[in-house]
Amino acid sequence: MVSVLENHIQTPSIASRDLHFIKNDFGFSASAYPIVPGHEIVGEVTEVGSKVTKFKVGDKVGMGGMAGACGSCDNCVNDYTVYCPKLIVTFHGIDNDGTRAYGGFSDFMVANEKFIVRVPDNIPLDAAAPLLCAGISVWSPLKYFGLGEPGKHVGIVGLGGLGHVGVRLAKALGSKVTVISTSPSKKNEALEHLGADSFLVSSDQDEIRAAMGTLDGVIDTVSAVHPISPLIDLLKTNGKLVFLGAPSKPLELPVLPLLLGRKVVTGNAGGGMKGMQEMVDFAAEHNITADIELITMDYVNTAMERLAKGDVRYRFVIDIANSLPATKP
Amino acid sequence: MVSVLENHIQTPSIASRDLHFIKNDFGFSASAYPIVPGHEIVGEVTEVGSKVTKFKVGDKVGMGGMAGACGSCDNCVNDYTVYCPKLIVTFHGIDNDGTRAYGGFSDFMVANEKFIVRVPDNIPLDAAAPLLCAGISVWSPLKYFGLGEPGKHVGIVGLGGLGHVGVRLAKALGSKVTVISTSPSKKNEALEHLGADSFLVSSDQDEIRAAMGTLDGVIDTVSAVHPISPLIDLLKTNGKLVFLGAPSKPLELPVLPLLLGRKVVTGNAGGGMKGMQEMVDFAAEHNITADIELITMDYVNTAMERLAKGDVRYRFVIDIANSLPATKP
Repeated sequence: MVSVLENHIQTPSIASRDLHFIKNDFGFSASAYPIVPGHEIVGEVTEVGSKVTKFKVGDKVGMGGMAGACGSCDNCVNDYTVYCPKLIVTFHGIDNDGTRAYGGFSDFMVANEKFIVRVPDNIPLDAAAPLLCAGISVWSPLKYFGLGEPGKHVGIVGLGGLGHVGVRLAKALGSKVTVISTSPSKKNEALEHLGADSFLVSSDQDEIRAAMGTLDGVIDTVSAVHPISPLIDLLKTNGKLVFLGAPSKPLELPVLPLLLGRKVVTGNAGGGMKGMQEMVDFAAEHNITADIELITMDYVNTAMERLAKGDVRYRFVIDIANSLPATKP
Repeated sequence: MVSVLENHIQTPSIASRDLHFIKNDFGFSASAYPIVPGHEIVGEVTEVGSKVTKFKVGDKVGMGGMAGACGSCDNCVNDYTVYCPKLIVTFHGIDNDGTRAYGGFSDFMVANEKFIVRVPDNIPLDAAAPLLCAGISVWSPLKYFGLGEPGKHVGIVGLGGLGHVGVRLAKALGSKVTVISTSPSKKNEALEHLGADSFLVSSDQDEIRAAMGTLDGVIDTVSAVHPISPLIDLLKTNGKLVFLGAPSKPLELPVLPLLLGRKVVTGNAGGGMKGMQEMVDFAAEHNITADIELITMDYVNTAMERLAKGDVRYRFVIDIANSLPATKP
């Protein structure tokens, strides 16, 4: 029941979640050290257990934030495994045997094949790594809330790891995409490089007013405290504002606009493995990957400092093969 | 195309919306005087226009908050007429001819038959009046969000005009109902008089903690600023918190619980006329009406003062027949 990811090509990327656990700054969960972070992991299968049926040695595979789940609850059955009450997260989670799970910043990894996806040959492994969490994080709400399809107009707030992949996935799914940012300097990036249809500066009241009531949904990737009233105003009747980031303090929620347009404010933490494979296959078919900066392990502390300042476009990915001596499990 | 409601039995009830318009304290819309309030209106048809097909003289009928709409937009077609951009509200709205609409505090009324429902003979007209707005306000989210059915567990926050009818409708629809109130003194009323299954004091952290994750939805009828974090905690994964009241200031919204349970925060302003007739027929079939205090017009200012203090259980209804001399349109 295991796949083993070979050291020489394992390339985990560094996401904010990794940083938050290292720094022990998740309010709801104290970090337990030692921690091996990494939950957007790609590599090659070097060994398979006797009950493995889906993968063979040499397959290129990926693993995201989920390492195990009950498999039988409503959420597991409906491929919303991330909401399984017995979910084992890829690092820092407690495995069924009581040991703590370690993540992808490692030269090898042992995983249950149910939580592994196949990575098609036509996309580079390193740039595909961020699909495994950033990708599914935006894919899941695009699909679940019906926002990623022709005829739909979706706003994406924040151009980071999630946002930039979200623009590409939503465009490829056929949606019209508006990027919403605090920073006017992102306009060219959003329109020219990522292919968004339009760009709004969230603090520009004239721009917001002109676009009021035009969006079927807004996917908000921002983890900092920020005003959501303008985002709610952008929604059509029945429109949905979906949070993917969790600010550490409560946000100000105006209620009347919800009533007057039956608008929905909600959040999404990801999906399941069926959706994950669909997303990776879809991304490969449309040549969608993340923009990354490839580093070696000796740069990781500097990368963490730059990540904390938002100084990365858009994900660091660690080249383990050129960082650590090869070992075997 | 008109039904005329006869003076001698027209019995409008007094809802908070009437009071707010009279006092000009809706922030989003300045009141234009003179105002004739009243948007929960029952009466008897005394005259019909030449194109009226649904009603005849002598029929017992009711009218709620909607007096007109476009009839062709998505919301009208799907019986969510209250969200029609061209909705004409029953009082204070601007009619198609440019005149301002006057409400039910009157000895007669002229209405479009499309915005009239039949009131079955077996329920008293006066106690049925609050169904026309309070009733549909709770019925609509119970139906739209799938909360009013066997196997569902719904919380109702606030025992006022909407809340007390909501408990009765939700129970009759087969849901398990928990009343959530700031006031422990409402417990007996909720359980014994209204038939709720359980009762929670919203400020009692032990009670809230014991009930966490048990509700499919919460219908929040409270218009004052209040904490919603405990209400979100009560929801299961995918649970829905639906606001029917609109506090004048933003509420504090914790985001992480939305993400971790894909919980939804939304609002609802009512429904359409098909749902309205279904609700009135359902209420009649189950002998559901509101608890009212019947008054004559000379008491109306005192009633408004008592309403402002919450001193009514649960609606004042004006007995026009015993208040005003009979006139004809």
